[in-house]
Amino acid sequence: MITKPTLLLDSEKCKKNMGRMAAKAAAKGLSFRPHFKTHQSLEIGRWYREFGVTKITVSSLSMAGYFSGEWNDITIAFPVNILELDTINELASKITLNIQLENFESAAFLSENLRAGVGCFIKIDVGTHRTGADPKDTKKIEDVMDIIDSSDHMSFRGFLAHSGHTYRCTSKKEVIDIHEKTRGIMLELKQKYKSRYPYLILSVGDTPSCSLAENFEGLDEIRPGNFAFYDLTQENIGSNQIEDIAVAMACPLVAKHPERLELVIYGGGVHFSKDGLKTDSEGLIYGKVVEQHGLKWGSPVPGMVLKSVSQEHGIVKVPGHLFDKYKLGDLLYILPVHSCLTADLMKSFFTTNGELITIPRLV
Amino acid sequence: MITKPTLLLDSEKCKKNMGRMAAKAAAKGLSFRPHFKTHQSLEIGRWYREFGVTKITVSSLSMAGYFSGEWNDITIAFPVNILELDTINELASKITLNIQLENFESAAFLSENLRAGVGCFIKIDVGTHRTGADPKDTKKIEDVMDIIDSSDHMSFRGFLAHSGHTYRCTSKKEVIDIHEKTRGIMLELKQKYKSRYPYLILSVGDTPSCSLAENFEGLDEIRPGNFAFYDLTQENIGSNQIEDIAVAMACPLVAKHPERLELVIYGGGVHFSKDGLKTDSEGLIYGKVVEQHGLKWGSPVPGMVLKSVSQEHGIVKVPGHLFDKYKLGDLLYILPVHSCLTADLMKSFFTTNGELITIPRLV
Repeated sequence: MITKPTLLLDSEKCKKNMGRMAAKAAAKGLSFRPHFKTHQSLEIGRWYREFGVTKITVSSLSMAGYFSGEWNDITIAFPVNILELDTINELASKITLNIQLENFESAAFLSENLRAGVGCFIKIDVGTHRTGADPKDTKKIEDVMDIIDSSDHMSFRGFLAHSGHTYRCTSKKEVIDIHEKTRGIMLELKQKYKSRYPYLILSVGDTPSCSLAENFEGLDEIRPGNFAFYDLTQENIGSNQIEDIAVAMACPLVAKHPERLELVIYGGGVHFSKDGLKTDSEGLIYGKVVEQHGLKWGSPVPGMVLKSVSQEHGIVKVPGHLFDKYKLGDLLYILPVHSCLTADLMKSFFTTNGELITIPRLV
Repeated sequence: MITKPTLLLDSEKCKKNMGRMAAKAAAKGLSFRPHFKTHQSLEIGRWYREFGVTKITVSSLSMAGYFSGEWNDITIAFPVNILELDTINELASKITLNIQLENFESAAFLSENLRAGVGCFIKIDVGTHRTGADPKDTKKIEDVMDIIDSSDHMSFRGFLAHSGHTYRCTSKKEVIDIHEKTRGIMLELKQKYKSRYPYLILSVGDTPSCSLAENFEGLDEIRPGNFAFYDLTQENIGSNQIEDIAVAMACPLVAKHPERLELVIYGGGVHFSKDGLKTDSEGLIYGKVVEQHGLKWGSPVPGMVLKSVSQEHGIVKVPGHLFDKYKLGDLLYILPVHSCLTADLMKSFFTTNGELITIPRLV
């Protein structure tokens, strides 16, 4: 019996999302290297096996260490943290480890200090302006390549991009425009360096592009992660339908305020995260209440949204005609705005098969 | 050696904050029942012992269970979740447990199902409009009182308020105005019900009021929690000086972008939380970089703020003249916007004495 905030996972929906993306990758001739930061679970990771997945992406060395027990080909899609040199050497001696470089200094440090072989991707800034080398900064890119080539332990694998600015899109067209721009930038780099590196890989990764784009010509690998669960943010972008969302929070109803048409739930920022979503119809929201069917769920209940979250409290708006339907001690099922952060906070999933899957704090 | 995002805790500053609040409570004749949701640690909780603290506040039954090993008088300052009846009965048979009621339905359910004695506070909405009974809703309040009085296992202890709207203040005057309004509402209730309950307690709790107000006349108990660490949100309100902040994140520098005067750190939303702070001078920020002194820290470095956070990345703005000072592999020390959420995410503290304190995931 669920008595506290609980993250429900519809394993059928999740596997359907995994299978759909795997099939798309296969149809487009792309290597599929899903990002595991979304679920952070060995057990859920295993579900990818039935879709032929053999290599994965993570966002930290801690996560790489955790998954290295079951996966022997891991790319860390995060700027290499040279302070973790010892862990890099340890992991690289056990599995195929790919790291992300974007500057001369880290590359130079590693070329002097690596004791085991690592694959190196140069991160390209395709417009998000968070990390990565400017694709026009040929000197920077080639300086890093020269260091890699001169090292006994580093092999250049290719270019890695993350069109994270698609997360700010609100239509398929905007996402496709960004994807096409990214593809153009990446293809130009391949053209430029393919004689030096005939096997170089172009790897891209964001869930909106991987969900919505059809043209991947010239690209080699995709690394989406969020699509395994999807969420309201992705639905708002257009990456998925509401029924594709594979996770929902179950939260106890602890107070009712008829004068404000509000329900207070046990479920707040330490459960959902404080990531909000600006919607046209409901303003800033933190989740949407859905119909309940046992441990599964149906469509959103119109007008029932999670309007605010403090540390443990959440406030749900409810239409007047539904107010009396909800009783203290009921559970409300709520689709999250950002499933990656919600999963990271909850550290466990309760599946629709009644199984509890826990994940460690990876520090 | 610190190689990954790490939450530093200056135990001296923390104990000073604890001691200052304990002394203030003593001077005002108030019972001091600090909130433990900020640190969530048995070990840090023990530090309060030297200031005479014998009773505590928490925000969930899970937390009450965790602390019940060392504390035998606990108030759960959160609307009672009747789904956790079994845990309530179990805990109430071991320790002095106080719960928070605000509606007839929960009170009626408990009166029928409790098997051990609990103290009951009625939560009063003093203006935050999150939870609590309207102080003018005499019928609601007295209906709950009647249920409590008719129950063998429930004892009315008093009224509990949380002026959470002080968190939206930006001056001492605004905080004091709210505190005085809260005090007025609470005193009126005491006046009204003191013949029925001669020993009723008025309990208030927010860190801004407890830090800034001087007049607590008629109130009986304070329950602040955040003040043990403080943070930039509280500093912005005026609750503390910047040098009182007892926690800072240490984050590895992983990339530099001179063209944007930005540093990329390993440290993002899964470390700091996504709670931002709107400041007049720097816009929306997620932290401030401070000078480093070993495991301790000094003043903020002017112009160096954490401007954005994604899942693992943070982007720090840096003034041009300081850009070259920071090297890849350096640690940046950063004061958090919201220490409670940062501690909840990090689940461990590294103290300035070099000790690692971990906290469990309380689900």
